Amino acid sequence: MSKRGIELRRILAHNVRTFRRQKQLSQEELADLCGLHRTYVGSIERAERNATLSTLDTLATALNVSVPDLLIKKDIYRDEY
Amino acid sequence: MSKRGIELRRILAHNVRTFRRQKQLSQEELADLCGLHRTYVGSIERAERNATLSTLDTLATALNVSVPDLLIKKDIYRDEY
Repeated sequence: MSKRGIELRRILAHNVRTFRRQKQLSQEELADLCGLHRTYVGSIERAERNATLSTLDTLATALNVSVPDLLIKKDIYRDEY
Repeated sequence: MSKRGIELRRILAHNVRTFRRQKQLSQEELADLCGLHRTYVGSIERAERNATLSTLDTLATALNVSVPDLLIKKDIYRDEY
């Protein structure tokens, strides 16, 4: 995968984690909402997965955001930890 | 896949076709730019594919747009045929 492809995984990872925490959901709770395994959500948040459109759609629906929202690089990365 | 998942494939299909035509590229030319098979690009434009992040990245790079641009539903669908 191109360097930019890896960057895209990282953007998705960051955004899923940020939106999930904003909603005060654990990885397990988000996974349950999505019908995905908890370890799968974890691997998305570690930028390990080449997610598909259907996974993006499922995550966006559960987080109540749009799919583009999940893939837009935020200008400001606040310290969220 | 959810109804919204199918809608997402259709948005991608529409946007890839629209950007490709704006750049006056054939499906084959776009496929060559992407290192993908021509029939694969055709199947994306027919909303048949559950594309991955890496494919979205490859298409966006070749079309010189952002990945979110490929997945944003346009408000106005002009007659493009």
